[in-house]
This record gives sequence, structure tokens and C-alpha cells, in this order.
Amino acid sequence: LSSTDLVERLLAGDRRALGRLITLVDDGTQEGKEAIVKLFPKTGHAQIIGITGSPGVGKSSLINAIVKCLRAKKKTVGIVAVDPSSPFSGGALLGDRIRMQDHFTDEGVFIRSIASRGSLGGLSRSVNNVVRLLDAFGSDVIIVETVGAGQVEVEIVKVAQTIIVVMSPGYGDVIQMLKAGIIEIGDIFVINKSDLEGAYRTFEGLMSVLELNQKKEGWNPPIIQTVAVANKGITELVDTIELHRDYIQKASILTSREGKRIENELIQLVNERVYEKITKGDIGEGENLNTIVSKVLSKQLDPYSAAQRILSALGKAKHYP
Amino acid sequence: LSSTDLVERLLAGDRRALGRLITLVDDGTQEGKEAIVKLFPKTGHAQIIGITGSPGVGKSSLINAIVKCLRAKKKTVGIVAVDPSSPFSGGALLGDRIRMQDHFTDEGVFIRSIASRGSLGGLSRSVNNVVRLLDAFGSDVIIVETVGAGQVEVEIVKVAQTIIVVMSPGYGDVIQMLKAGIIEIGDIFVINKSDLEGAYRTFEGLMSVLELNQKKEGWNPPIIQTVAVANKGITELVDTIELHRDYIQKASILTSREGKRIENELIQLVNERVYEKITKGDIGEGENLNTIVSKVLSKQLDPYSAAQRILSALGKAKHYP
Repeated sequence: LSSTDLVERLLAGDRRALGRLITLVDDGTQEGKEAIVKLFPKTGHAQIIGITGSPGVGKSSLINAIVKCLRAKKKTVGIVAVDPSSPFSGGALLGDRIRMQDHFTDEGVFIRSIASRGSLGGLSRSVNNVVRLLDAFGSDVIIVETVGAGQVEVEIVKVAQTIIVVMSPGYGDVIQMLKAGIIEIGDIFVINKSDLEGAYRTFEGLMSVLELNQKKEGWNPPIIQTVAVANKGITELVDTIELHRDYIQKASILTSREGKRIENELIQLVNERVYEKITKGDIGEGENLNTIVSKVLSKQLDPYSAAQRILSALGKAKHYP
Repeated sequence: LSSTDLVERLLAGDRRALGRLITLVDDGTQEGKEAIVKLFPKTGHAQIIGITGSPGVGKSSLINAIVKCLRAKKKTVGIVAVDPSSPFSGGALLGDRIRMQDHFTDEGVFIRSIASRGSLGGLSRSVNNVVRLLDAFGSDVIIVETVGAGQVEVEIVKVAQTIIVVMSPGYGDVIQMLKAGIIEIGDIFVINKSDLEGAYRTFEGLMSVLELNQKKEGWNPPIIQTVAVANKGITELVDTIELHRDYIQKASILTSREGKRIENELIQLVNERVYEKITKGDIGEGENLNTIVSKVLSKQLDPYSAAQRILSALGKAKHYP
């Protein structure tokens, strides 16, 4: 099937076409790019939720409960689970998916895992484009879940309009999260397993950090206490997600966040094309990246002058890139 | 003092000029760049060692012991301690420095801490350039120490010619390190605090992972057991570092690693200049990044076509950049 066929089938609601296109996009193929170009005007409908938190806090159970609640409201859901750490944890991810088996046979839920392969930039763009496919497919809500809670996860979860940071008693050191920049990006905080001992201490610890970390945009991130496996606190959480969505729409934060995200994407795409240009073949005046690196290695050229030389050559190149 | 004066003083062995230039370089100033351009031809003498490992494994004690051993051999040492996680841990770093007080008044040792401020790319280049300053200053050995052991630390410690990964019984989960890509980059592994219970299990665990992870370049990373505070195993470690240095020189791995590092640096510098060009002011045809982002936001343009438009505009720009 050509990407044009697949795009048409996706728009007609064909789940297998969606799955195939996700693979093409995730593999970074030309067909994947073509599909995104074609489907891009059809995006913008879905509400995108990011969920991050340390392993063990119960993110999968929480998502399971949220999806149940959304399905009761007749909303369709797409889930992208991302493990940036390595292909090694594919197994763990799959295990998590199986725990979501409540929705395994539900036509209104589409679940897909994405593992790391190579650069963070590549992974972020992959996630971004998979979200676009799910959006064009017609998902009402898209949930992007990261497996861990670190700096890399922060970058990925930024694709979302509403970011939920999940903790649980004993897991998810607040200081560690502060250092990773996770506290900063959280729109809603969840203390899951809040029936366990130590829940109040976790609540207090988070509270005091949030007070220090006053939110810039006029939204004070609430802390919701849940017991996902017992379905406790889930309605409150889903309502709060709605509240946040209304808030960012009114305050036109939605557009400014989206604009920032697109800006980053464009810069990254430009960087990649420039990279291709200067690594593959000639950049003019008989120079290429290799010959310039050699000159720096032999101290004929310093790195700053070398970069300048590449830039001049790029500017003079006739067929760019 | 101008950067020219500072450069001259640094070359004459003035520690204060070195300290000042490190600040200028770390702050990303124009004077810092000028100094690197001038000093670059004077670099290439120092042996650069990277040391990484989880907090608590005893990296500072180990470095303390290594420095003692190197000083006994009359070698001068520069130390750069890097905390990529956040400015928050400046305190912890300082504490570590104080533990190195054995060398605090030694003229043959120069110690400097660098904390994160902004992007990983910026931090890596900062470290790279600080190493160049220490190199031009005449340090025989430069030690780059990272505070944690994660993906970010891996990027930073790659500036080194010989990378030492430190573990200790109970700390430094091998699987976690495998995921972060740390096992892959280690040239020498150290199990510190090897007098503690569980040292043999750590050794065995590491051994089995290293066996899976056969080294490509013909060097089988040895595991050295040390008790840094009791100065045990340090001579063996310093000898092994020498062995590794000889090995990479003979196998011309030194040059290929250095070439790869310079290539990355040049690409990053080029990307930054392109970024400046497309964010500040016009990129031609009345377009700039903002107008193009707006068109993507309103779905008039998809991201791939938008990136292509920026690239065409860049190619046509007369004064690049």
C-alpha cells in the first residue's frame, strides 16, 4: 500500500492503516513524512495529556482508570507509551500494556509503545508525529506516557497540553524531580496509592516544593490523591484535566505552547538538513566536514574559525541543501 | 584585563588568569571564545581522564587518591567537576571539593566546579573548552568528574581519552548503567569500597555484563578493585590508565575519538549560528521564524514544508549568517 492509500484508510477509521503509518513514521521513512504532510491539516482536534513519574508509582493503573472514565463519557482514546531509556526495557513496557488489558479489545482505544532508538531529538519527533497520526485518526484524547521521570522524559512529555506528574508514597523523590525539571512542567500532580502509609508526608513534601515553585501562568497546579486500582479520585482527576484544558484555552496558553513546540521542531528539522548537507558530499571550495575536521585535528584551524568556514560554504552553495 | 593579556598570563603560568578565563569561557562570552581561538594551537599535551559513577560510590576519595599518586610522579593535575543536573547541587559539589583539601594548597593541582545552566550542548562545550584552557595552561593530566551517572553524564565524560566508571557494593545498579549507556563507554571499571560486603557480587554482576558487551576496539575493559580511603588499588589503577593511554595511541583510536568529538563540536556551533540567523531578524522574502511558525499553527503549512522554506531562505541570504 502506498502512503496515499494508507492515509485515506486512516481517515476512514482503519486501525490497521493507523498502526502501519505509526511504524512508518517511527522508522523515519519517507512515506511516514509524506503521510504527516498530508494529514497535518486534519490535526488539532485531540486533547493531548502527558503522564510522567518514576517507575513503580502506578502510572499504568492510573491510565487504565482514566481511560475507563473517558470511555464512559464515549470519548475515544489513543495511548503512546514511550521508553526513552533503551530498547532493553521493551519487555517491561509490554508488561505494562498487558495490565491495560481492560481496554485491549475496545475499538475506542488504541495503544502503542515506542522505544528509544538513537537520539532524543529523533524520539521526540517520533512521538510528536505519532500523536499527529492519532489526532488525524480522530482520537478525542491522546495520552503520552513516559516510563521514567528524568530530563529526557521531560522533553518528550512536553508534547502534551496538560502534563500530569504522578508520585506515590515512598517513590518519586521530590528533590530528584526538582533537579530533573519535572516539578516545573507539571500542570497537575497526582499522589497515587494514597491509601498507603506515608502518603501525607509525600503530600506535604510536594506541597512545600510547589509553594516555592510558584506557577508563572496563573494556574496553581493542584495535587490530586488517588488509589487507581480502587478507582478512587479518578473522577476528580479527569474533571481537573478538563478544568486545565479550559484554562489554557481561555488564557491562549494553548497556542503559545503549541507555537513553541513547532518552533523547536522546525529548528530541529533545519539542523538535520544542514547536517546532511555538510556530512554528505561537498560543501563547496573542495571542502567537506572531514577535511575541516582534519585541519582542526592538526591545529591548523580552531573550532570557531572552522565553524565559520562551514557556514560561509553553506551560504555560497547553489543547491541548498 | 583583555583576553589577550589573560591568555599571555595563562601561558606564563598565572593561576588567577586561568581561573578568570575559565569563568569567561563558562559564561559563553566573546572574550572566552577569543581566548580559545588563541590558545587552541597550544593544546594537545594533556592526558584527559573522565570519571563517572553514581553518587555515593566514592568518586571524590578516588580522585583524591589518584591525584596523590600522580603528584608523587611530579605530574600537574587539573580537575573539572561537572554537575549537569542543576544549579541546586552546587552545595554538594562544594562539599566534595572540600574533601579534596589534601591538594587545596598544592600549586600543582587546579580544581574547578562547573554546574549546569541551560542546555546540555552548552554544558558539554563549556567543559570541552575548560579542558582546553587547563591543557594550554600545561596540566599533565586533566580529570573530568561527573557527579551522577546518567545519559547526560555520558555525553559530558566523552571529552576524555580514558573513561573510568566507578561503582561500589550496593551502589550503581549495573542494569541502570547499561540503560544509560555508561557500561558501553567505560574503558576501565573500578569497584571502590571493595572491602565492603557484597563487593564480590558487584564484581560478578559487572563481569557478566561486560562479557555480553564485548568491546569493539580490541581493549577489554579491566575491573580494578580499590579502597580509595585506604589507598588500596590506586597504583594498579594509575598503571592501568597509563596502559590504556598507550593502547589508544598505538591503535590510533585517540585521533579517531578526537576527530569525532571535533566533528560534533563543529556541527553544534553551526547549528547555533543557524539558529541565531533564523530567530534574529529576517531570513529573506519577508519571512522569519515567527511568521513561518504562525503559518504552521494555522495549518497553512506543514512542518516539513516549513523547514524546507527556511532552508531555501537561508541559502539565498546574502550575508550568511
